[in-house]
Amino acid sequence: MEISEVGEFGLIDRLTENLPVHNDSTIKSVGDDAAILRYGADRDLLVSTDLLVEGIHFDLTYVPLKHLGYKAAVVNFSDICAMNGIPRQITVGLGISSRFTVEHIEALYAGIRLACEIYGVDLVGGDTTSSKSGLVISITAIGDCAKGAAVTRNGAHDTDLICVSGDLGAAYMGLQLLEREKIASAGHKDFVPKFEGKEYLIERQLKPEARRDIVEILAKNEIIPTSMIDVSDGLSSELLHLCKEGNCGCRVYEDRIPIDYQTAVMAEELNMNLVTAALNGGEDYELLFTVPLHMHDKVKDLDGIKVIGHITKPELGAALVTRDGSEIQLRAQGFNHMAPVQEVSTEPDNSGDKD
Amino acid sequence: MEISEVGEFGLIDRLTENLPVHNDSTIKSVGDDAAILRYGADRDLLVSTDLLVEGIHFDLTYVPLKHLGYKAAVVNFSDICAMNGIPRQITVGLGISSRFTVEHIEALYAGIRLACEIYGVDLVGGDTTSSKSGLVISITAIGDCAKGAAVTRNGAHDTDLICVSGDLGAAYMGLQLLEREKIASAGHKDFVPKFEGKEYLIERQLKPEARRDIVEILAKNEIIPTSMIDVSDGLSSELLHLCKEGNCGCRVYEDRIPIDYQTAVMAEELNMNLVTAALNGGEDYELLFTVPLHMHDKVKDLDGIKVIGHITKPELGAALVTRDGSEIQLRAQGFNHMAPVQEVSTEPDNSGDKD
Repeated sequence: MEISEVGEFGLIDRLTENLPVHNDSTIKSVGDDAAILRYGADRDLLVSTDLLVEGIHFDLTYVPLKHLGYKAAVVNFSDICAMNGIPRQITVGLGISSRFTVEHIEALYAGIRLACEIYGVDLVGGDTTSSKSGLVISITAIGDCAKGAAVTRNGAHDTDLICVSGDLGAAYMGLQLLEREKIASAGHKDFVPKFEGKEYLIERQLKPEARRDIVEILAKNEIIPTSMIDVSDGLSSELLHLCKEGNCGCRVYEDRIPIDYQTAVMAEELNMNLVTAALNGGEDYELLFTVPLHMHDKVKDLDGIKVIGHITKPELGAALVTRDGSEIQLRAQGFNHMAPVQEVSTEPDNSGDKD
Repeated sequence: MEISEVGEFGLIDRLTENLPVHNDSTIKSVGDDAAILRYGADRDLLVSTDLLVEGIHFDLTYVPLKHLGYKAAVVNFSDICAMNGIPRQITVGLGISSRFTVEHIEALYAGIRLACEIYGVDLVGGDTTSSKSGLVISITAIGDCAKGAAVTRNGAHDTDLICVSGDLGAAYMGLQLLEREKIASAGHKDFVPKFEGKEYLIERQLKPEARRDIVEILAKNEIIPTSMIDVSDGLSSELLHLCKEGNCGCRVYEDRIPIDYQTAVMAEELNMNLVTAALNGGEDYELLFTVPLHMHDKVKDLDGIKVIGHITKPELGAALVTRDGSEIQLRAQGFNHMAPVQEVSTEPDNSGDKD
């Protein structure tokens, strides 16, 4: 069976079905932004892994290696924040093909180290090896939170408020802009890309940040969300995760979705539907979470957090309420890193184990 | 600068120079088999990451996917054991190219799950994505030990005894055998490889085990080694690590190195020097450790552990004492996974960041 038939999530479901648990220290296994482990009496541990592959997750034509390193680290920090945790340590595995020099890898590492410095995270281990094709970056992040304070994807309840930090769609628009300028640059030696007035979009795409500050704001205001996830694949996809895991529905309001001015201008230029971009564009790494209705007064005035809708009973489904009051069913059209990709083969494949 | 000029260890040294530590929970950072973290009052945590790349670390022509999954997991468990710890959890990152089907990945996972079952380890998370070329497996293992009981590479002292578990060189001979039969099979459709009488070598190569049992035997006998490492790159290379990190020298005795009968027969067949194979062949995943001299009576009769030499002052260097009493300086001729590999490029490389 082709993997594309079942998709990334379908494959993961098959692989992780009925996973046994042998250790008391394993509190929550696969299926969330991070696993929850309990090795001490006071703190819970959070562990998350990401694998980034050249040509799938990044294009070195327009992503400087230092930015790539920064982003690779931050994306993992974001997974820890999405559990209501603070990232503390990472390990870094690198697969490096022969076209990379020591200086290239040092630039990549400079980005990883900068992210660690800014977020107070320790780089504690790794593995460095050759690769036959391009760059592979594997990062595992470890973080912690107070015992029992980790927030999973599955706790949303009917009438809970849906909140999101920052704004959405900018990273996706940054990607569109970079792609446009890449095409425009083809064959022009001294090409100067047009980024004026769109710096925010480029920054959101090339140098995203993990919302550790939001985790701290929530703690300071004694708000423990009922469910939380980071927006890596797009708002629509993440809302559907929260609804599926919490066995509930939701309504989010078009006019409540936070969108930056530059995102709107870019969508106009590209003749794209702005709300579609905000719903389906990935890589914003904002935090999407739910809180009980009675916390409305607590969250409504928090800087950088916006209430965009509410949780419903499951039978109502997940929908966007447009400005004119009509409802559009939400669909997961987020990033699919399991989409079929042309294989690059270096040698005849004569393994009996493969097709 | 080409990476081959500095080598894997040289590159890692450059990348991890002067790494800052921000968190009290980071006890030991890079430079050992695993990092040591302290999140609780009673137990210390051990974290290790490995990245395995098709064509570099494994050849699917003769490694069944289930065996590969088993080995990928066990190799990481071995890193935890090498710190005197017990593996508890792993995360698994997979990069999968389009030639793999759902069934292939399920076979790989079956091996990972079997290893977890046998070793009592929980698979707690992962990431699954596409790859442009072949299979990439990234595993992070987490384990634990009593507070302060982790054994690093740097504690060996003059007069300490050098011990090793099991026997050496068999995994390397298994690889030679598999390579020989692969070449012999070329162009023969119904080729039957000749493995009779050499099953142990094949098993050591395809289905290695982590010496969790040795960690338990040491604990039961109240032996805390002064230094420890697992034999992944070859005895010579690992001894040099212990000497460098502990600022000492060593003498190991040719006639004390444990070698299985099948390993000896195979070396004879291939006209290879047996001791060279035992010193430089990798992937045995035995534990190499040092204990204070006064523990001689405690370790000498332990099942599966052999005293092969002793630690010396650093000025004496690291040497093998041959059967005739002469000394041969040890050199690291272990596996080098950073050896230059032919790049497979799918598209013109026009990044300004690369050469």
